[in-house]
Amino acid sequence: MGYHESMTEGRNAVIEAFRSGKTVDRLFVLDGCKDGPVLTILREAAKQSTNVQYVKKQRLDQLSETGNHQGVIAWCAACEYAEIDDILKAAREKNEDPFIIILDGIEDPHNLGAIIRTANQAGAHGIIIPKHRAVGLTAAVARTSAGAVNYTPVARTPNLVSAMEELKKEGLWFVCADMNGTRMYDLNMKGPIGLVIGNEGQGVSRLVREHCDMTASIPMRGDIDSLNASVACGVLAYEIVRQRTML
Amino acid sequence: MGYHESMTEGRNAVIEAFRSGKTVDRLFVLDGCKDGPVLTILREAAKQSTNVQYVKKQRLDQLSETGNHQGVIAWCAACEYAEIDDILKAAREKNEDPFIIILDGIEDPHNLGAIIRTANQAGAHGIIIPKHRAVGLTAAVARTSAGAVNYTPVARTPNLVSAMEELKKEGLWFVCADMNGTRMYDLNMKGPIGLVIGNEGQGVSRLVREHCDMTASIPMRGDIDSLNASVACGVLAYEIVRQRTML
Repeated sequence: MGYHESMTEGRNAVIEAFRSGKTVDRLFVLDGCKDGPVLTILREAAKQSTNVQYVKKQRLDQLSETGNHQGVIAWCAACEYAEIDDILKAAREKNEDPFIIILDGIEDPHNLGAIIRTANQAGAHGIIIPKHRAVGLTAAVARTSAGAVNYTPVARTPNLVSAMEELKKEGLWFVCADMNGTRMYDLNMKGPIGLVIGNEGQGVSRLVREHCDMTASIPMRGDIDSLNASVACGVLAYEIVRQRTML
Repeated sequence: MGYHESMTEGRNAVIEAFRSGKTVDRLFVLDGCKDGPVLTILREAAKQSTNVQYVKKQRLDQLSETGNHQGVIAWCAACEYAEIDDILKAAREKNEDPFIIILDGIEDPHNLGAIIRTANQAGAHGIIIPKHRAVGLTAAVARTSAGAVNYTPVARTPNLVSAMEELKKEGLWFVCADMNGTRMYDLNMKGPIGLVIGNEGQGVSRLVREHCDMTASIPMRGDIDSLNASVACGVLAYEIVRQRTML
C-alpha cells in the first residue's frame, strides 16, 4: 500500500506548503536560525499550531532527502485530517448517537493505526487526537490501520479539554480508561459517548481526567500494570458496542 | 529493560548450546554446508525441531557479531519456554478452569508481546504457539509484553492440532476467532477453554479451525476486513472474562 508522508524541504517550498493549505505534521527548523523567510515560516506554523522542533544541522542533514534543506524541513500528513464537525455529521447521517474515541497522547504509530482500525469496526464515528506530544497520521499509522484511515475521520485539536467541553454541549458524556475506575460492566455507556484513552506510559492526564464524567476500568487479574493501549481501547470500545446492542 | 536474545556463533559453541538444553529459536546454516560438525548440529536441531534456515554467506556475515560464525549462527530465546503441562498446572493451582490462548502463526513481535500482556491481565493460564512460521520469545516480544512474559507461561509445540487433541482429553473446548462465526455474545465460553487466534494475514488455518468446537465472531460494523490480531484477541479474551464473572 502506498501511504507516504510528503517531506518538503527548503524555505520557499515549505512556505508554499503552508500557504496551499497542506497539513504540516511537524516542522524542523535549524536551531538559532531567525532570518526573514524562517520567521515567515514560523508565523505560518503558529497559525496552524504546527509542532515545531528546533534541531541541529546534523539532524536536518540526516532527515534531508534532497540535501538542500536550507534550514527547514516540513513533514506533511500522509492523509488529511478531518474536523470535529465531520465526526458529528457522520453520526447524524447514520442516525446514531455519536461515539467518539479521544486519544490523550498516543505516541506509538502501531497503537494509533490499530485504534483507527478498531474505531472503524466498532462503529465509532471518529477519533480526536491532540496536535502536540502525540503521533499524527504518518505513513506507518496509515499502513497499520489497514485502510481504516480512509473511512474513519481523525481530527486534531490544539486543546483536548476545550474540544471535550464543546462536545458536552452536543450531549456527549465522557468516560476515561483508568485502572482505578468503576468496573466497565457496571457503567452505563449507552447514548452519545466519548471514550478517552491515555498515553502508553502515563495514562490519561489529570486535566483531561477531571473533565470526564465516568472512569471505567477493565478487570485486571494479572501481575503487571496495564494492557497495551490499543488492546485496552478495543476492550472498552467493544463493551460500549455490547451495551449498545445487547441491553 | 534488558531482554536479549543470545546469539551463539561457531560450530562448537552452537553444539554446546543445543547440548546444554538452551532453547534455540532459529538456526542459520550456510547453504550447501554439509560436513561432520554441521550435520551433528542439524541432528541436534532436528531433535528440538528447531526452525532451520539455509542462508547465503553474505547473510551470515551480516548477522554475525563476532565475524567468526564458521557457517552456523543460533538465536536463543530471550526467555525460557514452558511446557503445556505447566499451563495446566497453573490452572489447577489456582483452582480455576483452564483458559489457554492458542496462537496459530502470529508473526508480528508487537502483537505477540501485546497478547502475552492481555493473557496475563485476563487471567489466562498460558499461551501456546507453534514452533514454525511464527515469532518466538524474542527480545522485542519480551519488551512489548511489559514484563508479562515473566508471569504468563508460553509453550511451543511442533503441531498445534495434536496439542489441541491432547487438551481436549483434559476437558478443554476450543473456540476460534473468525468473522463468519457466531456472534461472541451468543456463545457459552465458560468452563475449560482454548481461545484460538489466527495469523495476521490469513486468520486461523483450515486444519486448526476444523479441530475447534465453536467459531466466535466479533461484531464488525466497519468498512475494512478485520481487527488487529492483538486487539481481536483482547476483545475475545475479555468476553470470556465477562462470561466467567458476570453470568
